[in-house]
Amino acid sequence: MKVGFLQMEPDFGRVRRNVERAFSLMGDCEADLMVLPELFNTGYQFASRDEVKALAEEVPEGFTTEAFIYEARKRKTYFVFGIAEKVRDRFFNSAVLVGPEGFIGVYRKIHLFSMERLWFAPGEDGFPVFDIGMARVGLMICVDWLFPEAARVLALEGADIICHPSNLVLPHCPDAMVTRCLENRVFAVTANRIGREERIPGKALNFIGKSQIVSPRGKILYRAPEDREEVRVLDISPEEARDKLITPENDIFLDRRKEFYERLV
Amino acid sequence: MKVGFLQMEPDFGRVRRNVERAFSLMGDCEADLMVLPELFNTGYQFASRDEVKALAEEVPEGFTTEAFIYEARKRKTYFVFGIAEKVRDRFFNSAVLVGPEGFIGVYRKIHLFSMERLWFAPGEDGFPVFDIGMARVGLMICVDWLFPEAARVLALEGADIICHPSNLVLPHCPDAMVTRCLENRVFAVTANRIGREERIPGKALNFIGKSQIVSPRGKILYRAPEDREEVRVLDISPEEARDKLITPENDIFLDRRKEFYERLV
Repeated sequence: MKVGFLQMEPDFGRVRRNVERAFSLMGDCEADLMVLPELFNTGYQFASRDEVKALAEEVPEGFTTEAFIYEARKRKTYFVFGIAEKVRDRFFNSAVLVGPEGFIGVYRKIHLFSMERLWFAPGEDGFPVFDIGMARVGLMICVDWLFPEAARVLALEGADIICHPSNLVLPHCPDAMVTRCLENRVFAVTANRIGREERIPGKALNFIGKSQIVSPRGKILYRAPEDREEVRVLDISPEEARDKLITPENDIFLDRRKEFYERLV
Repeated sequence: MKVGFLQMEPDFGRVRRNVERAFSLMGDCEADLMVLPELFNTGYQFASRDEVKALAEEVPEGFTTEAFIYEARKRKTYFVFGIAEKVRDRFFNSAVLVGPEGFIGVYRKIHLFSMERLWFAPGEDGFPVFDIGMARVGLMICVDWLFPEAARVLALEGADIICHPSNLVLPHCPDAMVTRCLENRVFAVTANRIGREERIPGKALNFIGKSQIVSPRGKILYRAPEDREEVRVLDISPEEARDKLITPENDIFLDRRKEFYERLV
């Protein structure tokens, strides 16, 4: 199965341009599953709720999702991409999954980072896993990496591949995702953006790039640089994620001792 | 507060010699809290249940715990050390905490690794946190690192410092403990052993050393080499572990959304 990411630098507020550039950057790369960054079509640093309102889209009826459904059919590719989602009078920081069969599902970010909570409502529907035939795909967004519960829930729900659209500014996530993959024996595709935004004076954000694909044994199969747009597709075997044995005697899921984890909930 | 570890190579089966060597290696180092490896006084690779029976000790009445209580009083130091614990007709892979005031508590390893389950019963009392005045100390052992729930429970129960006696053979733990510290904003002291054991033919174990102390912000304050016995003590401020803010808007504990973590238990 060919999975990949697009690491790009969105142009804030220019949704159509960003969507067109995304497809242009992906060119005619062949992939079964591609992951794009969080809020890839709008840019990250909103300065007012009105901006969010102007740029958010409905799912699946909005421009961006429809464009991806069209391309998914044409390319026979599944796509995960992050956008600002409008749901009646509320907005979510969402990741959308579409495929050749059309719209599949959406994840609304559960853990909101910093100023995101000024604009977005926190997700109310949990961490979803979708079976796309070749693999079971789990969705989480950016700072969800910091909460071990996110990847854990996805893996326990059967995810083989965690698709992780991101706009990372802190330095720790790429290495921490290695731990997430090891402790859950899953693949993870983190698609991050690059570049800088300072739409709010004094609140500059520098995005760290380093999009990557990590194996269930914690191997960084590929990590992108910090400062360059890049498309990368690798061949993986999703069934590697279904082997949870770390020794002949230790299955990391069967060995969990839930009776001692009550404090977590 | 001065916290440290002893990285050593036990001589299998020679409990008195290992205990004496531990104190000799620690010399007159000044520390408030010292962590020793898992099963530091017996060695790791038992070849029969009879061996465990011969080497396991009661807690706190056994030789090793009494020796540490004596030294804890003399040195005004808290010690965490791993031993095979005998409880009536059962054995646990345990970590014991003693201090100048005497015996404080014991943790019986919850997640047993590989052949350990042939000799040891899995712990039945959860992950404990003890307040030793200068800090709140949580205990876990070796492969507990692989289960994010272990460190998470300890941190939610208020641990400032995770004391982590280990006998690591897999390569991943030292880096994964950085993630554990970041995601929980705690200190971790991993005390590992070095050397090789092949007491069961064809089942050689090479222990990876790399004992380390990691800060709540994921900084490796010190990491020992793979192949040398070492005592290391560092000065830390346990109160750093009580600041759970990663941005002015994000408290990593208050931001947890337990209603979506039900799958974990």
